[in-house]
Formats: sequence, C-alpha cells, structure tokens
Amino acid sequence: MIDIQRRIAASFAAQALMDTLGAKLALVADGEVHIALPFSTHLSQQHGFVHAGAITSAVDSACGYAALTKAPQGYEVVTAEFKINFLRPALGERFLAIGNVQNAGKLLTVCTGEVRAFMADEPAYKVIALMQATIAKVQSEKI
Amino acid sequence: MIDIQRRIAASFAAQALMDTLGAKLALVADGEVHIALPFSTHLSQQHGFVHAGAITSAVDSACGYAALTKAPQGYEVVTAEFKINFLRPALGERFLAIGNVQNAGKLLTVCTGEVRAFMADEPAYKVIALMQATIAKVQSEKI
Amino acid sequence: MIDIQRRIAASFAAQALMDTLGAKLALVADGEVHIALPFSTHLSQQHGFVHAGAITSAVDSACGYAALTKAPQGYEVVTAEFKINFLRPALGERFLAIGNVQNAGKLLTVCTGEVRAFMADEPAYKVIALMQATIAKVQSEKI
Amino acid sequence: MIDIQRRIAASFAAQALMDTLGAKLALVADGEVHIALPFSTHLSQQHGFVHAGAITSAVDSACGYAALTKAPQGYEVVTAEFKINFLRPALGERFLAIGNVQNAGKLLTVCTGEVRAFMADEPAYKVIALMQATIAKVQSEKI
Repeated sequence: MIDIQRRIAASFAAQALMDTLGAKLALVADGEVHIALPFSTHLSQQHGFVHAGAITSAVDSACGYAALTKAPQGYEVVTAEFKINFLRPALGERFLAIGNVQNAGKLLTVCTGEVRAFMADEPAYKVIALMQATIAKVQSEKI
Repeated sequence: MIDIQRRIAASFAAQALMDTLGAKLALVADGEVHIALPFSTHLSQQHGFVHAGAITSAVDSACGYAALTKAPQGYEVVTAEFKINFLRPALGERFLAIGNVQNAGKLLTVCTGEVRAFMADEPAYKVIALMQATIAKVQSEKI
Repeated sequence: MIDIQRRIAASFAAQALMDTLGAKLALVADGEVHIALPFSTHLSQQHGFVHAGAITSAVDSACGYAALTKAPQGYEVVTAEFKINFLRPALGERFLAIGNVQNAGKLLTVCTGEVRAFMADEPAYKVIALMQATIAKVQSEKI
Repeated sequence: MIDIQRRIAASFAAQALMDTLGAKLALVADGEVHIALPFSTHLSQQHGFVHAGAITSAVDSACGYAALTKAPQGYEVVTAEFKINFLRPALGERFLAIGNVQNAGKLLTVCTGEVRAFMADEPAYKVIALMQATIAKVQSEKI
C-alpha cells in the first residue's frame, strides 16, 4: 500500500485541476480514496452553492484513484464513463468525495462514489451526490 | 429569445466556476446552448490533458442552460443527474460543449450533450464526450 | 407498512411482464424491496446466460417499489431514468434483485439496486449488476 | 455486411428473451440495428403500458448488435453498462428500438439508443426512451 499511496499522491499532485479547485487528497486505502474540497466562492454556480461540476470533478478523481489501488503494476486507469445523481444543493463549508471499488474486473473496474457536505468541523453530514463509474485499466505505455 | 439570452448570460456570469475554468458562453438558441473552453494547464489531469471534471462542468452547464431556454417564466432548472461517456482523451487547444434539449416534460427535461475538441482555428474536430442529462424545473422562489 | 405491502403486492400482480419473466415479489420493507427471478431458458441471451434485459427488468421494478414505500398516500411512482452496470455474466440458478431508497426528495427519489446470482440453495452469491435510478413521484390521478 | 447480417440474425434467434418478448430483428446496417416490439398484454406494467424493462431489453439488444457490426472477426460484444431515460409512458401499438454506434474504440464501443412508439401503421411516432450504452469487445474464445 505504501507504493500505491505514493503513486497516487504523485499523480494527484500532477492533476492541476485539483489544485485549481482547492481539492486535497485525504485518504488512500485499498479500494477506497477520499478527496476533501473546501467551499470557495470561485467554485460557485449562480445561486452561490458549489457548482455540480466541481463536486463531480472531486468524486470522479476519488473513484479513479480508488480503481488505481486495485490496478496491477504497469497499468493506469482511465474513466470510461460515470453517472451522478445530485440529491440536494451543494450547501456546506467543506465537502468530502469518497470513491469505493465495487468490482475490479480484468478490463473494467466499477466504483461507487459519494459526496458528503459538512458544516465547519461538525461530524454530521448530508450526502449530496451519488456516483456510479466505469473505469478502464490501460497499460501505462499505451496512454 | 432575447429575454432568455439575457437571463442565461446573467446566470452564466454568476457561475464563478465557469470563470475559474475559463469557460465562455458561446451560443444561446431555443433548446441549444454552447460553451467554449480553451485549453489551459490549470485544468489538466496527470497526463497533461484536460481533466474529465472540467469537460464535464462545461457540458453540464450547457445542458442546464439548454433546458432553461425551454422553462416557463418564474422557473429555474436544477440538474437531477447526468451520465457522461469519455470517448477519447481531452486533447485539443479548445473545446466546445454543446447541450441540446431532447424532451421538455412537465417536470423533467432530458438533454443530450456533446464535447468537441479542436486544434487551434481548424474547423475539424473530434467528439470527446457524450452526455445524457435529466434536469428538473423548479419554481424560482423554491430554490 | 401492511397497507403499503398490500398495495405493492397488488401492483406487482398487475405487472404482466413480471409473470412473463417468472419473477416473484420476495420482500417489501420500508425503503427496500426484493424480487426473486429463477433461471429459465426463455430468459436467455445468445450464450445461454440470462439476458441483461430480464435482470434489468427485475431490478428496475425492485427500485420502483422501494421508492413507492416512501411515497405519500395518493402518489404513484414513475421511473425517470436509471443506469446499470453489469459486473459479470448472469450465470446462476436463481437471482435476487434488491432495490434500496438512498434519498426520497420532494419530487424525485434516488434508489440503488443490486442483483445477486445464487447457485441452487447455497447462501453464497455473486453481485452481477449495480443500478442507480431516479424515480419521480406523480399524483395518482395524473397517470 | 452479408456476413455480419447473418451472424446477427443467428445470434438474435438464439436470444430466447427476444422471442419471449415477441421482438423481431428489423434492420441491420453498418453501425445501426433496429428491433421491432409489438404491444402485447404480457409485457405490461401495472397501468397497462409496456413495462420499462421490455422497452429496455429491446434497445439494449439493438445497441449491442449495432456495436457488433463494428467488431472485428473473432470478437463478441458484452454490454458493460447503459443508462436510459424514459421520456413518456410506453403507450403504443408497436415500438421500434434503434441502436447506433457513436464511437468504436479499441476496447469499448459507445452507442446511443432510441425507442419510438407508433399507433398501428401510422408513420408518425413519439420517442419514448433514450439510451447511452458502453459495450466491451471480447475475444470469442474468452466468453
């Protein structure tokens, strides 16, 4: 796991969009990755809530990296597609995007994702989005 | 159409994320909206292509505003969910995200979205992503 | 719960497709519904496994009825859309389709579904499909 | 095309579910397949319309066979996932499910599907469902 944690930390650091959004890698475990996204006015949609696109970017990365924890050496992952439901407005002071591997097949890995909204440092949260994603394994030299 | 064009331009200008990403409103027609996204290194994923999340944010907004062109006065739109397929890496100098209304029901509007990648000012493009989205109409005072 | 169980049993009995497929209502609880589908050669695809469409029909009904357990009196449910991933071939002697409510909003209910494949009466199973569905509440007289 | 048409006709004839539903292969072209589904009371949901599951089964097969028209010799196709929106109740005397290839990649083929509802022999129709599907190519001996 230490190797994969380093590899994911390095890849995450190379995703300039995560820095642009202010997202941080919060946890890397076997088949599960968390990404933290603090509220910021530069992520808003027209009503002042966080834009669905910023929420989606964070949970897409969380699912992709969760899949990567299950990929063999010499393989990268590429998101083939995902579907996301928005359950309520992205209203909160900070958000946590969680990706979990549900099945790692030979070719495709299926992940589910969840985004939680928190007020300040309170432990209570509301689930604001649910994702189901299909991620392809690709040999590194083919990317 | 002039009213709805003004209304969408004002709403788009209030979406700080679009400004953060460098996206511009490029066309507003009845049931169709285009958003332009130039390549920028601050949008990249780990291989230097544009992150799927940035592409998704642009086409999600294009679909949402396309739905808004069909909404009656006093209604706003909220994305309930979408699904997006990534057909190839987001490799290009500029991108165009296009949202089209396929059906405007009493409650829900179904849109399809497409993202095209262009090299500089050439007219040829490759379709890099396809979206299918469900957007709810909500009375303005209820948001 | 007894009222809603009766209502769902009556509705299920009126779904001729469930009878055509040989599906049975196996459990109705608050926010969760199970539908059992035995293997039958008349459900097969070209390789002799159960067709994805039969699996999908069962879990779509399970999600719809799970949503109905959360609907107020005088409301029906209509599936707006769903997404389903097939994790492995539908190989088994019997299948169980499970629908769970994840969020019941004012307008839309989001459910997740899972289909499990069993060999004969063994308790072990494999998850063969995962669904994420959006179900609209509609006043009964409007259908 | 004659080879692939024969191959798809043979595969369709082996899908017992299509016979159970009363579906017929109506057209096989390069990247496009049509499946016809007449209304029948044994396909109904609780309000007497055709069940979403029957509609979905037909358009899933149409998308899968459309993908197969683009697969090289020695390859089969397997549906990895799909998403379907139901635009209105499946009210009609006959239905036509149409699958179209949007992109045939090395590994994955992305198709869109549409289901049209007709009254008797009238040429006018309503689109009742839209699908977006991801289909994997698999070497025949690996199935």
